[in-house]
Amino acid sequence: MSVSGKTAAIIGGGVIGGAWAARFLLNGWDVRLFDPDAEAERKMAEVLGNARHALPMLYETALPAEGTLSHVETIADAVTGVDWIQESVPERLDLKHKVFAEIEAATGVQTPIGSSTSGFKPSELGEGAVNPGRIFVAHPFNPVYLLPLIEVVPGPGADLGVIEKAEGLLRSVGCYPLRVRAEIDAHIADRFLEAVWREALWLVKDGIATTEEIDNAIRYGFGLRWAQMGLFETYRIAGGESGMAHFIAQFGPCLEWPWTKLMDVPELTDDLVKQIADQSDAQSGALSIRELERLRDNNLVAMMRALKGQGAAVGKLIAEHEGTLAKPAADGALVRSVDRIVPVDWTDYNGHMNESRYGQVFSDAADAMMKLVGADTAYIDSGKSYFTVDSRIRYLNETLAGQRIHVDSQVLEGKGKKYRVFHRMKNEAGEELATGEQLMIHVDLTTRSSSVPEASVLENLEALAAAHARLPQPDPSEVL
Amino acid sequence: MSVSGKTAAIIGGGVIGGAWAARFLLNGWDVRLFDPDAEAERKMAEVLGNARHALPMLYETALPAEGTLSHVETIADAVTGVDWIQESVPERLDLKHKVFAEIEAATGVQTPIGSSTSGFKPSELGEGAVNPGRIFVAHPFNPVYLLPLIEVVPGPGADLGVIEKAEGLLRSVGCYPLRVRAEIDAHIADRFLEAVWREALWLVKDGIATTEEIDNAIRYGFGLRWAQMGLFETYRIAGGESGMAHFIAQFGPCLEWPWTKLMDVPELTDDLVKQIADQSDAQSGALSIRELERLRDNNLVAMMRALKGQGAAVGKLIAEHEGTLAKPAADGALVRSVDRIVPVDWTDYNGHMNESRYGQVFSDAADAMMKLVGADTAYIDSGKSYFTVDSRIRYLNETLAGQRIHVDSQVLEGKGKKYRVFHRMKNEAGEELATGEQLMIHVDLTTRSSSVPEASVLENLEALAAAHARLPQPDPSEVL
Repeated sequence: MSVSGKTAAIIGGGVIGGAWAARFLLNGWDVRLFDPDAEAERKMAEVLGNARHALPMLYETALPAEGTLSHVETIADAVTGVDWIQESVPERLDLKHKVFAEIEAATGVQTPIGSSTSGFKPSELGEGAVNPGRIFVAHPFNPVYLLPLIEVVPGPGADLGVIEKAEGLLRSVGCYPLRVRAEIDAHIADRFLEAVWREALWLVKDGIATTEEIDNAIRYGFGLRWAQMGLFETYRIAGGESGMAHFIAQFGPCLEWPWTKLMDVPELTDDLVKQIADQSDAQSGALSIRELERLRDNNLVAMMRALKGQGAAVGKLIAEHEGTLAKPAADGALVRSVDRIVPVDWTDYNGHMNESRYGQVFSDAADAMMKLVGADTAYIDSGKSYFTVDSRIRYLNETLAGQRIHVDSQVLEGKGKKYRVFHRMKNEAGEELATGEQLMIHVDLTTRSSSVPEASVLENLEALAAAHARLPQPDPSEVL
Repeated sequence: MSVSGKTAAIIGGGVIGGAWAARFLLNGWDVRLFDPDAEAERKMAEVLGNARHALPMLYETALPAEGTLSHVETIADAVTGVDWIQESVPERLDLKHKVFAEIEAATGVQTPIGSSTSGFKPSELGEGAVNPGRIFVAHPFNPVYLLPLIEVVPGPGADLGVIEKAEGLLRSVGCYPLRVRAEIDAHIADRFLEAVWREALWLVKDGIATTEEIDNAIRYGFGLRWAQMGLFETYRIAGGESGMAHFIAQFGPCLEWPWTKLMDVPELTDDLVKQIADQSDAQSGALSIRELERLRDNNLVAMMRALKGQGAAVGKLIAEHEGTLAKPAADGALVRSVDRIVPVDWTDYNGHMNESRYGQVFSDAADAMMKLVGADTAYIDSGKSYFTVDSRIRYLNETLAGQRIHVDSQVLEGKGKKYRVFHRMKNEAGEELATGEQLMIHVDLTTRSSSVPEASVLENLEALAAAHARLPQPDPSEVL
C-alpha cells in the first residue's frame, strides 16, 4: 500500500501520460499504467527519470515515499478499484470513446475519468457513455510533473460532486485545477498558444524574424512578465493609477489597426470594457499600482537571478553584462573582496538579509581571495582548487534588501596547502555587520584530496600573506 | 563628467521614457530629460525609485556610480552633444515628426535617434527628416529598467554604421538589441501580444474565463516555459527526437480547426515547414532533446523556487502544497530538523552543493529547532525571536544536486536568553557531510535587543536541553 493509500490508472503513456504517472508516483500514489506500445516501459522510465530529478527540488522538505508503478496488460487491470483514471491516448475521438467504454465495463460509475485532450470538448468525449457525467477534461501542460496548471472542463451534464472531488485530488498532488466556465474548443491556454503560433508562422514565412529571434523576442521581454502575472494584471500596471478601463480605452483603438494578420476582433462596447475593468478590480484591486509594480519587479529580479544561476536565457545576458563592469579594487592593504547590493531573493518577508546569505557573501569573498592568488576559473578547470574545511561567522548587525554592502578581507595564513582568510562585512555607513573566517585547503579535483598548489599560486599566496601579516590582526576572540 | 563619460537625451518622460533614463543613469551615464509635463519631475522620481530598487539587484557586483539627471527646458538643451537620443512621446506621428525636426535643428547628423514607438515603422518616422538614416525604432518592454529586450528596426534607408553603433551602446547598458529584419507594423512581440489580447477579449466577452482565470492559465502553465525558452524551442522539445518538422506535421492540422476566433492562417507548404525546421536546427540543434529537457526543467525549477522565495505566483501554490506534506519527525532522541533534496539552484556548474548552501541547511535546521520550542511564525509575529550571534561550520564531504540530505540536531545549551544547537548533516548513505553550530540569543523585535523568552518557550527549551544533555555530546574539537 502506498503512503497516500491511493492509486491512479494511467491509460496511454508517452510524454503526457508518463508525466501524469510520475506526478502521482512522486506524491506517494501507486500507479497502474496501460499502454500497448512496445516502447512504453522505456518511455515511462525516461519521463520518470526527468520527474525524479526535477519535482522534489521544488520543496524544502522531502516528498512522501514514492508509490509503486505497475505496467498492466489490459484497461480493466488498470482501472479496477482506483481513485483516479487519466486518459492520454492520441487525439482521435473514436479511440477515446473505445477507451471510455472499456473503462466503464470494468469500474463503478463514480471514479473520476480525466482526459488530457487539447481539443475535444467534454460533451464530445462523453457521447455514448453510460455515465458521461464523470468524464471531464483535465488538460495538463508539459512538463506535467512540474507545471501545476490543469484546465478542468466539466461537460454540460457533469456530476459536480465528482468534479469537486477530482479537483481536491489534483490539489493533493500539487496541481492547480482551473475550472473552465463553459466548454469550448481548445479550452483557454491553447487558444492563446495557437493564436501566437499562427502569427509566428506568418513572421517566419514573411522573413521578418527567424525562430530563434522570435524566441528571444518572447523570453527577453514579455515572457518574463507573463510567468509571474499573466496578461491582465501586467496591463493593469501599464494603465497606471487611472485603472484598467483607462488602459483599455488607450489600447482599444490599436485593435482596429492592421497590426496582426489575425483580424477578428470583438466590439469594445461599454459593457465589455466595464466587465473587464470590474473583473480586474476584483482580481488586483486590493493593491495599489505602486504595490503591484514593486511585486512585479521583485518577482522579475528573483526569476532573472534564478536564470542567472543556471547560466540560461536572460540570466546569461545579465552575466555577460556583469563581466563588463569594473571589479572591486584593493582598498589600501586589505582586499575589497565584495561590493554589492542585497537583492530581494536574499531576504525574509521583512526585508532583512537571511542569516544564510551572510555565509554566501563570505563564500563569495573567499572566491575573490582565491582569484587574487591565481586560483581562478582557468585554474579550477585545470583540475585544482581550494575547499573550505572550517568556517566561522559572527553576526553583529542586520541589513536590508537594497542596501549596499562590502567586505574587506585579510589573509591570516598562507602556506603550503593552507589558506586562511578573515573578512569584515560592512554597510555604507561603515558599520560592521559580521565577521567571517574560512580555513581553505588546496585540493586536487581529480583525486578530491589535499595537495600543494601550483608554484605560481603558492608564490602569490605567500607574498600576500607576508604583506597582510604586517597589518593589524583580528582580536583572538574574533577568530576560530 | 559621468563614470561612463556618456550622456543620453530622453525626449518624453513618463513610464517608458523615465525608465530609459533610469537605465542609462544606473549604468553611469548622465541624462538630460525633456518633458513639458508639469508632473514630469515627480513621475521621473517615481520610476527612478523603482529602478534603483530593482536593477542593481541583478548583479553580484556594484554598478558604476550613478550619472547625473538634469531636467531641461528645451529639446535643443537636451540633445546638444549627447551620445544617444531616445524619443518616447505619445503615439502621434505628427508629434514625433515635430520632435525629430527640433532635434535635427540642434544636433549633428550622426547621433543615434531611437524611437520607443510600438506601432510606427521607421520609414514613417523618418518622413521629412534631413537624415532619416539615423532615426530608427528602439522599442523597449516595461519595466524598461529590468527587461533587456529592445526591438531595433532600421528603416529602408538606414545608416547601418549608426545602427551598429547604437546596438553597441544598448549592450553597454545591459540591453539586448534584437534587429528586426524588415519593418512591419508593431514589429514582433507586440504582434503576439495583440493576438493574445484579442483572443482574451473574446474569452471574457463569451464568459469562458475571467481576467484572473486567464492570468492563471498563463502564469501557472506556458508563461513559465516562455520566460526561459520562448515558443519554438519549447515546441522542438514537444516534437521529441523526430524533430521540428515532425512536430509541425502533427500540429499543422489543428490550424485548420476552429480553435481560435482569429482565423487567418498561412498555408503550411513544404517550403515553410522546411524553413522552420532548418531555423530550429540552427537555433537548438547542438543539443539533444534529452539535454533540452534537462535545461528546461532546471530553468523551471530555479524560476519556480525564486517565485516561492517571493511568496508569489506559482511559488505561492508550491508553498501551499508543501504545507500539506508530512514534517520530518524526531528520530529517537535527536531532532530530524531537515530532510530534503539538494536543488539545482544550490549547486555549481558541476552539480556540487555550494559551500554557502551548507550554511542555509544549518540555518533551516536552526529554524526547525526554534519552532520545536514554540518560537514559531506566530511567536515571531508577536514580536519575539532568536537571532544567531555566532556560528561554525565544518565541511567534511561533498554532495550533489538531486541527493537527499538530512540533519540531526542536538541542543547543547538552553537557558535564559541562550539557545545553542549542534547539527550533523548526512547523506542517504549515512556519511557525515558537515557539522554546524549556532549560538542563538533571544531578542525583542521591537527594541531589537536581547530579552528573556516567553515562559512557555523557556520551559520547552529547558526540558529539551535537559533531555539532550543525557545524549552523547560532540567532541570538543567539533564545537566553538
